[in-house]
Amino acid sequence: MSIPSLTGVVPPVCTPLTPEHEVDVASLERLVDHLVEAGVDGLFVLGSTGEVALLPDAHRRRVAETVVKHVAGQVPVLAGVIDTSTLRVLRHAEQLADLGLSGLVVTAPFYTRTHPAEIAAHFRAIAARTGRPVFAYDLPVSVHTKLDRELLLELAEDGVLAGLKDSSGDDGALRGLLLARRAAGLDGFSVLTGAELTVDNALWMGADGVVPGLGNVDPHGYTRLYRHAREGDWTAARAEQERLVRLFSLVGAGSTERMGRGSSALGAFKAALHLRGVIDCAATAPPYVPLDDDEIGVVRERLVEAGLM
Amino acid sequence: MSIPSLTGVVPPVCTPLTPEHEVDVASLERLVDHLVEAGVDGLFVLGSTGEVALLPDAHRRRVAETVVKHVAGQVPVLAGVIDTSTLRVLRHAEQLADLGLSGLVVTAPFYTRTHPAEIAAHFRAIAARTGRPVFAYDLPVSVHTKLDRELLLELAEDGVLAGLKDSSGDDGALRGLLLARRAAGLDGFSVLTGAELTVDNALWMGADGVVPGLGNVDPHGYTRLYRHAREGDWTAARAEQERLVRLFSLVGAGSTERMGRGSSALGAFKAALHLRGVIDCAATAPPYVPLDDDEIGVVRERLVEAGLM
Amino acid sequence: MSIPSLTGVVPPVCTPLTPEHEVDVASLERLVDHLVEAGVDGLFVLGSTGEVALLPDAHRRRVAETVVKHVAGQVPVLAGVIDTSTLRVLRHAEQLADLGLSGLVVTAPFYTRTHPAEIAAHFRAIAARTGRPVFAYDLPVSVHTKLDRELLLELAEDGVLAGLKDSSGDDGALRGLLLARRAAGLDGFSVLTGAELTVDNALWMGADGVVPGLGNVDPHGYTRLYRHAREGDWTAARAEQERLVRLFSLVGAGSTERMGRGSSALGAFKAALHLRGVIDCAATAPPYVPLDDDEIGVVRERLVEAGLM
Amino acid sequence: MSIPSLTGVVPPVCTPLTPEHEVDVASLERLVDHLVEAGVDGLFVLGSTGEVALLPDAHRRRVAETVVKHVAGQVPVLAGVIDTSTLRVLRHAEQLADLGLSGLVVTAPFYTRTHPAEIAAHFRAIAARTGRPVFAYDLPVSVHTKLDRELLLELAEDGVLAGLKDSSGDDGALRGLLLARRAAGLDGFSVLTGAELTVDNALWMGADGVVPGLGNVDPHGYTRLYRHAREGDWTAARAEQERLVRLFSLVGAGSTERMGRGSSALGAFKAALHLRGVIDCAATAPPYVPLDDDEIGVVRERLVEAGLM
Repeated sequence: MSIPSLTGVVPPVCTPLTPEHEVDVASLERLVDHLVEAGVDGLFVLGSTGEVALLPDAHRRRVAETVVKHVAGQVPVLAGVIDTSTLRVLRHAEQLADLGLSGLVVTAPFYTRTHPAEIAAHFRAIAARTGRPVFAYDLPVSVHTKLDRELLLELAEDGVLAGLKDSSGDDGALRGLLLARRAAGLDGFSVLTGAELTVDNALWMGADGVVPGLGNVDPHGYTRLYRHAREGDWTAARAEQERLVRLFSLVGAGSTERMGRGSSALGAFKAALHLRGVIDCAATAPPYVPLDDDEIGVVRERLVEAGLM
Repeated sequence: MSIPSLTGVVPPVCTPLTPEHEVDVASLERLVDHLVEAGVDGLFVLGSTGEVALLPDAHRRRVAETVVKHVAGQVPVLAGVIDTSTLRVLRHAEQLADLGLSGLVVTAPFYTRTHPAEIAAHFRAIAARTGRPVFAYDLPVSVHTKLDRELLLELAEDGVLAGLKDSSGDDGALRGLLLARRAAGLDGFSVLTGAELTVDNALWMGADGVVPGLGNVDPHGYTRLYRHAREGDWTAARAEQERLVRLFSLVGAGSTERMGRGSSALGAFKAALHLRGVIDCAATAPPYVPLDDDEIGVVRERLVEAGLM
Repeated sequence: MSIPSLTGVVPPVCTPLTPEHEVDVASLERLVDHLVEAGVDGLFVLGSTGEVALLPDAHRRRVAETVVKHVAGQVPVLAGVIDTSTLRVLRHAEQLADLGLSGLVVTAPFYTRTHPAEIAAHFRAIAARTGRPVFAYDLPVSVHTKLDRELLLELAEDGVLAGLKDSSGDDGALRGLLLARRAAGLDGFSVLTGAELTVDNALWMGADGVVPGLGNVDPHGYTRLYRHAREGDWTAARAEQERLVRLFSLVGAGSTERMGRGSSALGAFKAALHLRGVIDCAATAPPYVPLDDDEIGVVRERLVEAGLM
Repeated sequence: MSIPSLTGVVPPVCTPLTPEHEVDVASLERLVDHLVEAGVDGLFVLGSTGEVALLPDAHRRRVAETVVKHVAGQVPVLAGVIDTSTLRVLRHAEQLADLGLSGLVVTAPFYTRTHPAEIAAHFRAIAARTGRPVFAYDLPVSVHTKLDRELLLELAEDGVLAGLKDSSGDDGALRGLLLARRAAGLDGFSVLTGAELTVDNALWMGADGVVPGLGNVDPHGYTRLYRHAREGDWTAARAEQERLVRLFSLVGAGSTERMGRGSSALGAFKAALHLRGVIDCAATAPPYVPLDDDEIGVVRERLVEAGLM
């Protein structure tokens, strides 16, 4: 039995942009400092919260390079290599191959309709061709496939997968996986939850950590939550989690008449980071629609209520 | 009132690959000849049938370049610039900008959850920044959004869209769009159907043409069908369409226990092109699963029944 | 080879209600006269357009009884026995058993998640236990299952199903079924389309008839369309169909902020019947939301444009 | 602030059937004894686990009557009045009106496509017309609608809803609701989870109880779990929950090639009750497919492992 390669709080790092939608390197470095100083255990760049699906390849490379260099080994850095198919994912992995990343995060193929056998072949090919630790990213809302427990365990057992980021929101299925992992003695297979509103529950059930989008805005909240849980002070963990649930409501700041939920959530995270003085500009990449002044006012209120301003 | 920029049979060209999954340029040129000699009215490269979502950028560039050069102006060539977001689509457009393409084919954003306002902004940005004719590609099965009639007409009216490839399979909605186009006097806005089993119907309702995946295998069938329709011989058009519907059943050759429907359909198209001597190798890109010998045998039977072997 | 048991125009009859949501028998009889005098070939009561899912059992019985008696054998009458499961559907069939209906219309089970083997068993049990002609009703938008071609043909071949009402809107799949029916010599198996905007196409492809919700409002339009098609005057059929497509836009009269699409469509059909003097009251059953005066004004405009007022 | 009307373990009671699919009253009474003797806090008859959607009205009446009489006031009894629309639900409520039920459990309308305004009107009408405590049943997998937090709170505040059974499996949304309930001082509004694999989590977050399908098979497990949680012994609660998660795997006993997941889960619950000697026959209602001997053998193994045989 081995030790999970990844545990604790691993925020999916936002990608600060300039008003012209270029990577804002200085803001990104400040964001990394903001997270590392709060005690996070790792960083996950180029996830959905990092707007990976909205960013061109050069932006992606720049983000990963900036973060790896700036972190300088203080914590592990994982990168999403998110694309529709095996060869496209492999190209992203190649573009990041020299950076010494601690792992690659990979979804099932999308756009094409996929079959479990194809998903398995996809993960196997990426692990074999990159030689890097591969973390499966279960995100049915974007990928329109739920990763199956048997599939995950088979790939873990064969050494294909180093871990899982479970953003399915299905905590019952997560528990089934955690118990099956234990029964199979696959303790080296990391399981992190992306469900940022039930982190105390996930840790209680045996998850190794959390990848919270809201952790960009309030990393101290999530590191306190995780520390309380590790120390067995579940009541304190719950109180912290409940504060974070209330803060999380900022993701609804944007009007559903003008924008989708992604625009609203990412716009709110970035507005909060801007209001807190971490990043210079709250811009998100097109086609995301920016929040207006009233909507930013709502974000400010949530920050004040949460004691963050 | 202007004339539609695109009419007739415009096959979405398959991308022949070598066993190592590189673009097989010689086979691609033979496939182009096979299509042009059959009398097609245009070519659409890098669509779903061209495995665009499975191909790296360099493959995509190579495909478009090969086809444009080889066609040498005999028919217009459109290219899919298929990706998740505005900036990523724009990068694809830039990579193809020097080729003199007759148009770019663009879906709604995917992976992120999109709002109609975001979809409109996406098409507007791409048209404005590329200056090329943009064709909307309605493909809910991959993109998980249906393009709305009002949205399409507004974008047509504003000169953002040059046309539509409707692969939604919703012929009732298509008819509503065609009548609304007529009522608005937007005759310059091309409407092509991707529903390859009801082409006679679509032309009868007023569509300008068809983008048939099966047209790779039997381009003569589709050009005959189109010519019959143009000449008003609908009975002959129907007979041809019915023959093509029977041929189309080859897409089900692959076992649903081993592969998804995309693997089966693309594998069958390519197996048919290989059996007909047009391309050297039937390989599809991973994670698509190849057909086995028995399944290729089924494809052969369909070709024999259709009089193509 | 036998003759299809059902052909032509078979409107799914609306269920006129009093303001207190009781069956308005006098209005229902006038509606039946309105349809029969227009030359329809059959009547389908208790379909989705008849608000079957909104009506208690006693209402359902009353509707079927009223229509069968009033029609008095002039045309065949089919009734929907729509419910979640086998035993519940059988109870509905029993409640209507004495009426001498020409057929029962049955969907796949819903609410529970169903398997093809369960769907087949469902149809087999209903046919065996009722001894009546059973028509499968393919309505994925309500039932969340698409009936599979192989399943339908197997049940047709075994004498379980007398026909199909295809309201899937998938005209490509419909064509595949029609050709497979012909190949199997199953000509006695009636195939009717519920896709009221592409009836000329469906008849052209070989369908036997149509079940048009809009046929309540304008039965003469559909009977003309059908007669033109039977006489081979497809141009006249198309012109009629296009007029009906424009009329159909009345289903969007209700505001999407206040109501769902069912409320709007059914409210508009009934408002149109009320405006045309056929029924006394436009009420729909709860939870459908009624149209307001402005929305009824839109319905009136559509009727005027279509020459119906 | 009032006290929730319903707390604790409230199993959704299975409906034992004879081989001829009649209600097996003697077995149902034994099942009720089995549950009440295990210390459950209430009973919920005619839920999805009770096969409500598969049972005719007379069966439903018989089940509710049998259970209310046999329980004789020892614990509260709630009944599902599950049907597609307002008037149909009201008829079910009338058929049970004389039984002195402690509450009615109601889903959003289904089969028709519903709008939030229609869902609200539905619950309001049922509460007003029955005068009974109404519990909303959130079951997106069957009803294809997720009940919205704002809607639930508005209906709770207006006294329309007495509580919620949340079977959405979305524990993040559940937490948001629980915190909003607390903030609004709506403590009299009961919130019970139907997510039987994360009951410790739900109670930890503030839920009032659980409605576990698996509680038919092992009610003692769930009452122990609940008691441990109430006493603050969360470690013991978790150990119990984990045992129940392992036991729960019996729902996968049935082959996915022969049946749907409902057939398998209900068949397994009933096979387990039969093997444990509680009910006479494991039959489920059509179109559910029965388990075969090998599959029942799997159920037996799970029971042995869980110490229940």
